[in-house]
Amino acid sequence: MIPPDHPRFRSLEVRERMAWFAREGVVSHEGLAAHGRGEAFDYLLGERTTESALLAERTAAALLLSARHPVISVNGNTAALAGREIRDLQRATGAVVEVNLFHRTPERLEKVTRLLEGYGVEVLEGEEERLIPVSHDRGWSHRDGAAAADVVLVPLEDGDRAEALVRMGKSIIAIDLNPLSRTAQAATLTIVDEVTRAIPAITMAAGTLTRTEGEKLISRLDNSYFLQAARDEMAARLTHALD
Amino acid sequence: MIPPDHPRFRSLEVRERMAWFAREGVVSHEGLAAHGRGEAFDYLLGERTTESALLAERTAAALLLSARHPVISVNGNTAALAGREIRDLQRATGAVVEVNLFHRTPERLEKVTRLLEGYGVEVLEGEEERLIPVSHDRGWSHRDGAAAADVVLVPLEDGDRAEALVRMGKSIIAIDLNPLSRTAQAATLTIVDEVTRAIPAITMAAGTLTRTEGEKLISRLDNSYFLQAARDEMAARLTHALD
Repeated sequence: MIPPDHPRFRSLEVRERMAWFAREGVVSHEGLAAHGRGEAFDYLLGERTTESALLAERTAAALLLSARHPVISVNGNTAALAGREIRDLQRATGAVVEVNLFHRTPERLEKVTRLLEGYGVEVLEGEEERLIPVSHDRGWSHRDGAAAADVVLVPLEDGDRAEALVRMGKSIIAIDLNPLSRTAQAATLTIVDEVTRAIPAITMAAGTLTRTEGEKLISRLDNSYFLQAARDEMAARLTHALD
Repeated sequence: MIPPDHPRFRSLEVRERMAWFAREGVVSHEGLAAHGRGEAFDYLLGERTTESALLAERTAAALLLSARHPVISVNGNTAALAGREIRDLQRATGAVVEVNLFHRTPERLEKVTRLLEGYGVEVLEGEEERLIPVSHDRGWSHRDGAAAADVVLVPLEDGDRAEALVRMGKSIIAIDLNPLSRTAQAATLTIVDEVTRAIPAITMAAGTLTRTEGEKLISRLDNSYFLQAARDEMAARLTHALD
């Protein structure tokens, strides 16, 4: 039990939720550590959506709405943290949701799928093949999944699959709290924000953007701006804002 | 299995080690997430010991050598990451080693103790009481443990126990990769470095420092310098060094 007088009660509460999903086999042990890495960067962001992240989220909505075959690729951490939020984004954009795991076992695939379905997500199921050229199990995809997509949203991704998907000619939207990560660098568009803040912001924008606004956002997309803005925010907090 | 061509192979290997110790019941699930937070800050430090951290490590050696009753307080993460390093530091300084767990069960206490003993650490055992005024289980201590110490080294600590120990009049040496944490702010001396680099550096300094050098280091101790130096290092890497 975390005492409610602990100053990081909320963050620790999410951490306990993740620990619970780890015991349930949805989140891997390595996923817990990855979550902690995200927490640290979010702490440096002030645990809030910055102006530049909000612009990235609006741009992500535009990319998903203009896509021919948008896919949301979900791993264990994303399912544990943001199942409901994924459901709402799927409804707003019509995107295909595919489960993709680094630490892949048939049992974990089943558990993550059932968890998402419990939240009302329609999950792509059926035969998978190694369609994405990476040296680990995130290479598995359905024929109608990320392999067939023109735009893929990858929350909480590892770097080499993002790079491989970009090399396959796809537009990749990453949600990654580390603006220095390979995923953040490789993606077409990187949202440096926490996943349960980022996904609802994309969903909201998808409901309100006009086609003209969307086209303008896409034409102005400059990922290096988003990355540098996030780095500057974090650096400013490190240098003086948090005393 | 992590493929060796993965650019963060080493960091992921340590993460797998932590996951292994989590399965063994030494590291808590929450400890895995805390480890990930540390990884993120270490990444911003460049995964190296900075000049200012080295000075902090030499100062820590001076504090431990000049102490009447030095204690090293070890939790599950520290035992999993740095059992051997703790043994060597204990031999160099004659410090008492006490196990102290946030997620405390008799079984985990036993496991962490046996693990340390396997590395050759002499671990304080016997009756414990709630001697440190905090609202969670890190308040337990032996009469000859942290409660009786004048100098306590707390690697990977949570903030409120560090504050409570300082209020009890003790000198607290923290090893904490987050220079903004409550522990880092509360401690008498904060070493912003990764624990398996920091502890051997303290041990080395303990073997070579003269009494005069030690006294000089202690008289010049300014923890706000160490914290600001670490923040500036991280901010610099965020702003421009890692492109």
